[in-house]
Amino acid sequence: MAFNPHVLSLASPPIPQAKAWGAAYDWALGPFIDLSQAVPGYPPAPPLLERLGAAAANPDYASYGPILGDNDLRTVYARHVGEFYGAGLAADEVAITAGCNEAFVVAMIGLAAAGDAVLLPQPWYFNHAMTLSMLGIEARPLICRPAAGFIPVPADAEALLDDRVKAIVLVTPNNPTGALYPASVLKAFYDLCRRRGLALVVDETYRDFLAPQSAPHRLFAEPGWRETLIQLYSFSKAYCIPGHRLGALIGSKACLAEIAKILDNVQICPPRAGQAALTWAIDGLRDWRAANSLEMARRAAALREVFVSLPGWQIESVGAYFAYVRHPFEGVPGEGLAAALAGERGVLVLPGSYFGAGQDNHLRIAFANVAIDVIQALADRLRDFGPGAGGKFGSRGGAPSWQTI
Amino acid sequence: MAFNPHVLSLASPPIPQAKAWGAAYDWALGPFIDLSQAVPGYPPAPPLLERLGAAAANPDYASYGPILGDNDLRTVYARHVGEFYGAGLAADEVAITAGCNEAFVVAMIGLAAAGDAVLLPQPWYFNHAMTLSMLGIEARPLICRPAAGFIPVPADAEALLDDRVKAIVLVTPNNPTGALYPASVLKAFYDLCRRRGLALVVDETYRDFLAPQSAPHRLFAEPGWRETLIQLYSFSKAYCIPGHRLGALIGSKACLAEIAKILDNVQICPPRAGQAALTWAIDGLRDWRAANSLEMARRAAALREVFVSLPGWQIESVGAYFAYVRHPFEGVPGEGLAAALAGERGVLVLPGSYFGAGQDNHLRIAFANVAIDVIQALADRLRDFGPGAGGKFGSRGGAPSWQTI
Repeated sequence: MAFNPHVLSLASPPIPQAKAWGAAYDWALGPFIDLSQAVPGYPPAPPLLERLGAAAANPDYASYGPILGDNDLRTVYARHVGEFYGAGLAADEVAITAGCNEAFVVAMIGLAAAGDAVLLPQPWYFNHAMTLSMLGIEARPLICRPAAGFIPVPADAEALLDDRVKAIVLVTPNNPTGALYPASVLKAFYDLCRRRGLALVVDETYRDFLAPQSAPHRLFAEPGWRETLIQLYSFSKAYCIPGHRLGALIGSKACLAEIAKILDNVQICPPRAGQAALTWAIDGLRDWRAANSLEMARRAAALREVFVSLPGWQIESVGAYFAYVRHPFEGVPGEGLAAALAGERGVLVLPGSYFGAGQDNHLRIAFANVAIDVIQALADRLRDFGPGAGGKFGSRGGAPSWQTI
Repeated sequence: MAFNPHVLSLASPPIPQAKAWGAAYDWALGPFIDLSQAVPGYPPAPPLLERLGAAAANPDYASYGPILGDNDLRTVYARHVGEFYGAGLAADEVAITAGCNEAFVVAMIGLAAAGDAVLLPQPWYFNHAMTLSMLGIEARPLICRPAAGFIPVPADAEALLDDRVKAIVLVTPNNPTGALYPASVLKAFYDLCRRRGLALVVDETYRDFLAPQSAPHRLFAEPGWRETLIQLYSFSKAYCIPGHRLGALIGSKACLAEIAKILDNVQICPPRAGQAALTWAIDGLRDWRAANSLEMARRAAALREVFVSLPGWQIESVGAYFAYVRHPFEGVPGEGLAAALAGERGVLVLPGSYFGAGQDNHLRIAFANVAIDVIQALADRLRDFGPGAGGKFGSRGGAPSWQTI
């Protein structure tokens, strides 16, 4: 058999590759610190686990459910999102998906065919770029500059548009940079998409980790949002249940009619026990989520302090869940550097090179994974990190050097 | 926004459409009998539900797992399949998916790009055809004839091959016809694919409902299977847990390296609590599965008796889970007929027209959904069914007529 060339040309999944780098670490500096994949380092709330268990033991949830998700969850989630964004949303404007990656895949299939293009701010979430590539859709980079806080510029986007572009994707708070896009920027992108007949797909996976606040944008209050906007969300992060695979997509009824065709082919229905438990959790864990978001803000503050103390290192962007850090080793290939950091110092972060071209001088830190004392320990781990004799990393016995990886 | 024309051109998901026909039924003849979607009408085994509940309440299974599934389940499933088919299979030749539809989607993305073609025996499972269409891949029909028991003919397939064809898909036991493809036919298709460098994708979703027996084919014992074969499976049917969304794909390590890239983009990992419970159930519910498959054989026998007693009706194929029945109303559009049957007689089956062109004279009956006494009740429901005055269906008050649907 021969494989689809679009798939053959993709790199292997990056997270497992990165996790393998940790094998070289000898624990000399203490426990391994994994700041790679976004995984909050605390367990799900006990009453949520209890409800997950009860639902999974219930034969009613062992059977198929509706393609777009159980009506109870769609109703509660529509009300919740509507309240937060100050807009009326109906249950039939919500689709429940098996995670936010699936929401992104079905949105892209719904909007673009092979040969079309989608604008994606770069640095980008690697799975977004790979999803487009595997479908034969061009992921057209919209370059975000450190000097602009990695906020994309609508005029830059407009200059990249042609007949092949069908949608613009924005991720806010951003992965990998953590940048929270200002409401005015989102509105400008919305206006651009509306004027050009494009879809604006806004992925807000990490929004629940923002400090409690007013809505980060008012797009759902725009009278024409249903012709332009698709919003994506993940229950995995905010509720610490990625293993239950649940996310959501909000769009017009007309949009969901198309998305339903795709979801039916991909999954028939989303996993059901988690839906039952989340129907309770959206209101039931409101305080728990708020407490977590405050803790995330404290972790971000602790991370800032760490990097102030490290000469040559600089946090260029931080927010919600991630920090995007400039390291002092200009010219060193990102993967080798991150591998050396994992092997020599027991600190796993993702190299900027995973997030697009020209990102070798950066590292993504999923700081929200670990408690404040672990974040503080990063100062000692990073302080003397650098190439040893001959400009090579690998000063600790047996650890990999970036030249050889 | 504009939608992908490949998606716009798809019909709405057929199962919800069909289920709506039942609303017109007035219960005059007794409870509604739903023989549409394949859903075994008995609950999951209590010890499985217990384990599903325990795993879902366990925080370990709330976190991400490996992209291709948990190693324990992959190991047990590989051994189970290897024993059944008399061949050695390794855990790293198994991918766990969120249901067999997802397994099919990722296999198709892995094998074919937009503009390529895949051979699909017709009548076909509608989601297979729609999945290919939404990806811009041609679903090229390989016509199966009633006179041949709906078994596809390798020479017919070979005549349809050109450079665009990348794979041949076979479903056995078949959906919708129930036909079990003989081992010799599968071997002939395998040889054809091997000779032409194509992938042979064999979907065996319904294999556990066959009467206990020796393996239905010996393809895994072929020395070259890893270059040619991909096998798909669903845990949903055999274990009555479609709401937990789990299936499996078997292929070579090289194949799974490509599939892993796609699965990472689509779902990161399959739902985890169900994986833990199934790791036990594959061996733990062996007898339960065998008892169910015997019951399915009894249901098939009961269905045969029903149709022997109905003049003009004929079961043209039956097996495992489905029967494919020729009805006596030649020339009546299939959807209208099925809608009238649901509305007037409270019997929901799927019209042949859902399964491809030229199928209007057939209905698919998911007989395995209901107990033998319900199957027997079908005789009375169907006996006098037919058009009333003026050749119209709709003799019972308020029921839809096929002309108007």
